[in-house]
Amino acid sequence: MKREDVTEMIIAAKRKKKVTWANCAEVIGHSKEWSTAALLGQMVLNETQAKAIGEYLSLPAEAVELLQEIPYKGSLPTAVPTDPLVYRFYELINVYGTTLKALIGEEFGDGIMSAIDFSMDIMRQPDPKGDRVNIVMSGKFLPFKTY
Amino acid sequence: MKREDVTEMIIAAKRKKKVTWANCAEVIGHSKEWSTAALLGQMVLNETQAKAIGEYLSLPAEAVELLQEIPYKGSLPTAVPTDPLVYRFYELINVYGTTLKALIGEEFGDGIMSAIDFSMDIMRQPDPKGDRVNIVMSGKFLPFKTY
Amino acid sequence: MKREDVTEMIIAAKRKKKVTWANCAEVIGHSKEWSTAALLGQMVLNETQAKAIGEYLSLPAEAVELLQEIPYKGSLPTAVPTDPLVYRFYELINVYGTTLKALIGEEFGDGIMSAIDFSMDIMRQPDPKGDRVNIVMSGKFLPFKTY
Amino acid sequence: MKREDVTEMIIAAKRKKKVTWANCAEVIGHSKEWSTAALLGQMVLNETQAKAIGEYLSLPAEAVELLQEIPYKGSLPTAVPTDPLVYRFYELINVYGTTLKALIGEEFGDGIMSAIDFSMDIMRQPDPKGDRVNIVMSGKFLPFKTY
Amino acid sequence: MKREDVTEMIIAAKRKKKVTWANCAEVIGHSKEWSTAALLGQMVLNETQAKAIGEYLSLPAEAVELLQEIPYKGSLPTAVPTDPLVYRFYELINVYGTTLKALIGEEFGDGIMSAIDFSMDIMRQPDPKGDRVNIVMSGKFLPFKTY
Amino acid sequence: MKREDVTEMIIAAKRKKKVTWANCAEVIGHSKEWSTAALLGQMVLNETQAKAIGEYLSLPAEAVELLQEIPYKGSLPTAVPTDPLVYRFYELINVYGTTLKALIGEEFGDGIMSAIDFSMDIMRQPDPKGDRVNIVMSGKFLPFKTY
Amino acid sequence: MKREDVTEMIIAAKRKKKVTWANCAEVIGHSKEWSTAALLGQMVLNETQAKAIGEYLSLPAEAVELLQEIPYKGSLPTAVPTDPLVYRFYELINVYGTTLKALIGEEFGDGIMSAIDFSMDIMRQPDPKGDRVNIVMSGKFLPFKTY
Amino acid sequence: MKREDVTEMIIAAKRKKKVTWANCAEVIGHSKEWSTAALLGQMVLNETQAKAIGEYLSLPAEAVELLQEIPYKGSLPTAVPTDPLVYRFYELINVYGTTLKALIGEEFGDGIMSAIDFSMDIMRQPDPKGDRVNIVMSGKFLPFKTY
Amino acid sequence: MKREDVTEMIIAAKRKKKVTWANCAEVIGHSKEWSTAALLGQMVLNETQAKAIGEYLSLPAEAVELLQEIPYKGSLPTAVPTDPLVYRFYELINVYGTTLKALIGEEFGDGIMSAIDFSMDIMRQPDPKGDRVNIVMSGKFLPFKTY
Amino acid sequence: MKREDVTEMIIAAKRKKKVTWANCAEVIGHSKEWSTAALLGQMVLNETQAKAIGEYLSLPAEAVELLQEIPYKGSLPTAVPTDPLVYRFYELINVYGTTLKALIGEEFGDGIMSAIDFSMDIMRQPDPKGDRVNIVMSGKFLPFKTY
Repeated sequence: MKREDVTEMIIAAKRKKKVTWANCAEVIGHSKEWSTAALLGQMVLNETQAKAIGEYLSLPAEAVELLQEIPYKGSLPTAVPTDPLVYRFYELINVYGTTLKALIGEEFGDGIMSAIDFSMDIMRQPDPKGDRVNIVMSGKFLPFKTY
Repeated sequence: MKREDVTEMIIAAKRKKKVTWANCAEVIGHSKEWSTAALLGQMVLNETQAKAIGEYLSLPAEAVELLQEIPYKGSLPTAVPTDPLVYRFYELINVYGTTLKALIGEEFGDGIMSAIDFSMDIMRQPDPKGDRVNIVMSGKFLPFKTY
Repeated sequence: MKREDVTEMIIAAKRKKKVTWANCAEVIGHSKEWSTAALLGQMVLNETQAKAIGEYLSLPAEAVELLQEIPYKGSLPTAVPTDPLVYRFYELINVYGTTLKALIGEEFGDGIMSAIDFSMDIMRQPDPKGDRVNIVMSGKFLPFKTY
Repeated sequence: MKREDVTEMIIAAKRKKKVTWANCAEVIGHSKEWSTAALLGQMVLNETQAKAIGEYLSLPAEAVELLQEIPYKGSLPTAVPTDPLVYRFYELINVYGTTLKALIGEEFGDGIMSAIDFSMDIMRQPDPKGDRVNIVMSGKFLPFKTY
Repeated sequence: MKREDVTEMIIAAKRKKKVTWANCAEVIGHSKEWSTAALLGQMVLNETQAKAIGEYLSLPAEAVELLQEIPYKGSLPTAVPTDPLVYRFYELINVYGTTLKALIGEEFGDGIMSAIDFSMDIMRQPDPKGDRVNIVMSGKFLPFKTY
Repeated sequence: MKREDVTEMIIAAKRKKKVTWANCAEVIGHSKEWSTAALLGQMVLNETQAKAIGEYLSLPAEAVELLQEIPYKGSLPTAVPTDPLVYRFYELINVYGTTLKALIGEEFGDGIMSAIDFSMDIMRQPDPKGDRVNIVMSGKFLPFKTY
Repeated sequence: MKREDVTEMIIAAKRKKKVTWANCAEVIGHSKEWSTAALLGQMVLNETQAKAIGEYLSLPAEAVELLQEIPYKGSLPTAVPTDPLVYRFYELINVYGTTLKALIGEEFGDGIMSAIDFSMDIMRQPDPKGDRVNIVMSGKFLPFKTY
Repeated sequence: MKREDVTEMIIAAKRKKKVTWANCAEVIGHSKEWSTAALLGQMVLNETQAKAIGEYLSLPAEAVELLQEIPYKGSLPTAVPTDPLVYRFYELINVYGTTLKALIGEEFGDGIMSAIDFSMDIMRQPDPKGDRVNIVMSGKFLPFKTY
Repeated sequence: MKREDVTEMIIAAKRKKKVTWANCAEVIGHSKEWSTAALLGQMVLNETQAKAIGEYLSLPAEAVELLQEIPYKGSLPTAVPTDPLVYRFYELINVYGTTLKALIGEEFGDGIMSAIDFSMDIMRQPDPKGDRVNIVMSGKFLPFKTY
Repeated sequence: MKREDVTEMIIAAKRKKKVTWANCAEVIGHSKEWSTAALLGQMVLNETQAKAIGEYLSLPAEAVELLQEIPYKGSLPTAVPTDPLVYRFYELINVYGTTLKALIGEEFGDGIMSAIDFSMDIMRQPDPKGDRVNIVMSGKFLPFKTY
C-alpha cells in the first residue's frame, strides 16, 4: 500500500459516506484547508488524528499508519497544471510574479514568504455581482541570513 | 522600442529618482499591487495614468504610448520559477493544488476563481514571533456554464 | 474506481449499445458539445443527468456517483497534442495567437474571452467543394479589473 | 532585416499613425483576421497588398519585399502560452480536445478540420449580461485518404 | 479493452501465425503502408476489413469493433524518438526542415503538403553498393486560403 | 561572423537579386535539394562551389570561407516545429513511426535507412484534383553490425 | 508479453542461475557488448542464438520468439540519464561534443561516425594508481553524400 | 568579453591563419583532443599555454587572460544534440546505456568511469570497406565509497 | 520482482516493525546516510549486509538477492523535485551554483568534488532560536586530467 | 544596465585587478560564500558594502546602486546543470533525495531545512589520498505549521 492508495481510499470513503471535507476537518480538529491537504497526501496526521479519521471513514489499519508517515509532497500530475481552477493560480504567479517580488521586497527587504510557517483560509465573500472566492495566505517573512 | 524596454526604463528611472513602487502607485491612482503589475508590463494604463507616470519618471513619449498598449502577459523567464520568493508561490500550488480544487468545489460547485475579475492585497502583519506577509486574493467565482 | 475508469466504461458501453454521442446528449438533455465533454470527464453532471445516462448505458452505481463529482480537467496525454485533428487546433493558436490578442484587444480592450462562461457549437456546413467543419465559440468578454 | 524586424516596424508604425488593425485590413483588402495575421508575420502578402500597406505605414522597401516572402510560422514564444487571453484557447483544447475528436469523428468520419483551407471571424456579440466574443472557425473537412 | 490492447493482440497474433505485414495488408485489401498503420492503431478499418483481419488473426469480437473506431493518433512514446531507425526521419526534418520550406514554397507558394490526403510507398531499391530504402511520399499541396 | 550570419546574408542577397533556389543550385552544380540545404547552413561547399555562389550572390570573402566549414547542423528553432509545412513532416513520423519501423524491418531486417548516404527529390505532380507534392527519399539501408 | 517483459525475465533468470553477462555472451557466440545489448532489448538474435540463450536461461517459448523480433530501441527512462555511471557518458558528449565535431571533421571531412556499423569493446586496464575502464569505439566513417 | 567571445575569436583566427586544431595542439603542447576542448571553452590553459596560443593566433591580451579562467562547461546548445555527428554519440548512450552499466558493473562493481580523470584518443583506422573512426576512452574506475 | 518493489517492501516492513532508519543502519553496520540510501535503492549491499537486513525486516530471498545487485540510480520522480524539503537542496544549487564553482575553483583549480568518493553526515545542531539541520558533505577533489 | 551586466563587470574587474573572491569578501566584511554569492547576483549588499566593493573594483555608480537592489535569483542557465562541478551537486540530490527526506524526517518530523536561514562553509580538508572538498551546510529546521 502506498500513500496514493490511501488518498484514493479516502476519496472513495468520503463519497460513500456522503460527507464533506469540512466534516472530515472537524473530525481531525483542524482547519478545513490543512486537514484536506493532509487527507490528500500533503501533510502528516498525528496518531490521534489518524485514528479519528480512520474510524470516521472506516479506513484499514495500514492506511491509518500511512497517514502518520511524512509524504513526498506534490499533488499535481504536470508542472504546468491543466485543470482550469488550478491553472488560474499558476497564471497569477506568471502575471504577478515580479510584482510579488517587488512589493514584498520593498516592504520587508530580501527574503521570502514562508510556505512552511504558513496558513491559508478559503472563504466565500457574498457579492451582489456574483460571490467571490477570498483566499487569505499568511506566511512568516524570512529574511535571507547574512553570514 | 518594446514593452520590455519600457519596463527596464521604469526600473532605472525609479532607481535614479529613489522612489518606491508605492509612490508610483499614488501617481497612477490605484493600488500598489495593480500599479506595480502595470509598470512591470502586465496591465494597461489609460492615457491619464500613463502621462502621469511618464512625467513622474521622465519617460520618453514613445514609452508613454507603449504603456497604453495591451501587453503580452507573463513576467517570468522560466515555467518553474527559480527565484526563491516566487518559487514559494509555485510550491503552494503544487502542495495545495488539489486542496484548492476540493474546497472551492465543495463551497461553490464546478468553476474557477477568476484571475481577471481579481484583486490582491499584500500586507505586513506584525507578529512578535516574526512579522508575516499576508496576501488577500479575491476573485469572482465563475461557474462552468451548462449549455 | 477513478473518473478515468468511468470514461472508459462509457466508451465501451456506447460501443456495445451502438449509440452516438448525440444520442447520449439527448438523454442528458443538453447540447452534444457539453454533454460529450461531461461524459469524457471534463464537466459535472447533476444527479438527474447522471442517473439518466447511467441507466441508458447501464453504468454501475459508483460510476453514476462519480459523474456527479468535479473532475480534474485536462483530456490530453501530452502538452502538444500528437493527434492530427486535435493538433490543428493547437496550430491555429500558434499561428493566430497574436492575431487573437490584437483583434480582441482592439475591439474590447484588455481582457480575455472566458473559457468558463463559454459555449461551443460544432456543425457541418455543406459545400460543393467539400463540406466544412464550422465551429462557433462564444465566450463572455472579461475585462481585467482595475483596483 | 528579418521578418520579426518587419513585424516590430509595423507595430511601431501603426502606433505612431494611430490606426487600427481593421484600418490596415482595409488597405490590404481582406478580412481583419487574415490581414492582421499577415502583418504579424504569419501569412504572405502579394505585391499589390505589400506595396499598399508599405505606403500606408511608410515601411522601407526591404520590409515591403519581406512581406512577400513566405514566413516561418508560429507567433508565440512558448509551447504553452503564458498570456491569459491566448492561454484560454489552449485551455479549450485541453478541456475539449477529446470532445472535438469525438464529435467531428461522429459527423464526418476519420479526418481533420483543415487549418489551411480555413477562415475565422471574430465578432462582438452584444449581451445584456456582458458582451461576448464570438469566434466562427470554418475549415474544410479532410478525410484521411485510404490507399 | 483499449486500442493499445488491440495493437498488442495483433502483434502477438501475427507472431504466432508467422505472417508478415504484407500478408495482413492483402487480407485488408490495401497497401502495406496504410494497412500496417491501421493495424498499429493509426487508421480506421471499415467493417469488412476489420472482420477479415479479425478472422485472419483470430481476434476477439470487441477487438474487431475497436478497429472500426477512430483512434487517438500518435505511435511514438517520446517527442524526440529514441529508436535509431525512427530518429533518422526526425533528423531529416531537423536538417532539411528549412530546405523543404524553401523549395515547396518556391514551387507552390505558401501552403503545406497534406499529411491527410497523403500516401506513402516504401520500396527496396537494389544497388550494388548496398541496397537502398526508397520512400515516395505524395501529399496534395494545400495553399493557405486567403479570406 | 558566424554561419547563421552567412545564411542571413544569402537570403538577403537572393531577395535582392531576385533569383530562386533553383538558380543558386545551378551555380553550385548540384541538385536543388542539396544545394539549398548547403546554403541554409546544413552542408559544406567545396572551394569551387563556395566561390561560384559567393560571386553570384556578391558575398564577402569571409562568408565564402565559412561556406567551406562544416556547420553544426539543425535548422529548426524548436524540437517540435511550429511551422505548419514543417510540422506535417513531424506528424508523419508520429503517425507512421511504428509503420516505418515494421515495414523496413520486414523487408531488410534490423537496421536503418541512412540519413547520410541519402538523397531527396521534391517534385510537383500535376493532378486534376489539385497538384501534389511528391518527395522521393532514398537512403542506403545500413544493417546493425553484429560483433 | 512484450519485449520489456522478456528483458525482466532474462535479468531474473540470470540472477537465479548466478551467471554473468559474459557467460550469456558465450552461449550466444558473440562479444559481451553486443550480446548484453541484445539481451537488454536493443539488438535482434537469430533463431539459433535465441534458442540457445532460451535453453540456457530456461525462457518460455514466446520469449524466445520475441528475442528474434526487432525491438524499438532506447534503454533509458529519461532523456538526460540520472544514473551516475550512465550520466558520465552524457557529460562527455556535453563537454567534448564540439571537440568530436571539430576533430572528426578535420580528419575525415563532413560526415558521421556510424552508430550502426559500429562495435565497442569495454576492458579493464590495470593501473597502479587505480584500474581504468577502457572503451574502444569503432564506427565506420560515413561522409554526407553530395547529390 | 566572455569566454564564448574568445571561442569565436579562436575559430575566426584559425580560419584566417588556415591552421588545423592539430597545429594548435602542438603549440599548446598537449593532445589534439584535450587542446581542442580547451580552445573550445571546456578546459583551462595555464599561463604558458595561453600565451603561446595567444601569440600563435594573435589573440588580444584579455582573451589570453580568459583562457586561464575556469569555464562553465557544456558545449552544446540543446539537451538532445541536433547535429547528426554529435547525436550518434547520444544515440549510443541511449542504445548501450544499460549495457555499459551491466558490463562495467560486472567487471568492477558499483561505481563509475571517471569523466575527469579521463583521456580520449580519436583516430582514423584505415579499412578497405571504408575507413573507420576509432575512439579510445580511458577513465579511472571510481568505486562508490562505503561509509 | 524489481528493485523498486524491494524498496516498497522495505518501507512497509520498517513501518510494521516500527523501527527507524538508524536501527536499520546498525544492522547493516554503516552510517545511517549510506545505509538508508542503500535501502532506498541507491547503493549496493554485500551478501552479509543484505542477509542481515533481510532477516531483520523479514524480506523474501529474492529481495535479499536484489539488494546485492547494482541499481539504476536516481531516487526522484521529476527533474525538478516537487517536495519542499528536497526542493530546498535544488534551490541551493540554483542560487549557489556559480558560487560553488567560483570558490572550489579558486581553492583547488579546475575539477570537481567527487560524488562517488563522497560521504555525508546529517546532524541536529541544537540552537535556542530553533534547532538546525547540519549537513557535512565531504568529497575528494578530482582535478581535470591534462593529457 | 541590468544586474547581469554588473556581474560581468565584477568578473572583468576582478580579473584585471588579479584579486580573489576571498579578497573581495574581506572588503565586504562577510564570509567568502555569502559575499561571492552576492557579487554573482544572488544576494543584496547594503550601502556600505556596495560602496566598499565598488571602490575596490572601480565599479561605476549605477552598478553600486544595482548591488543594493534585490536580484531575481537563480544563477544557472539550464534546469539540469551541464557543468560537471555543478552537476555533481544535482546528482547528489538525485541519488540522496529520498535519503535526505527520510533522515531529516526521522530526526525532526515533517518540515524542511531552510535555504534562507542558511549558511554554508566550503573548506579544503587535507588528505594523503587526495585533498577533499568539505562543505558544511547549516539551515534552520522549519516544521510545517499545523493550523
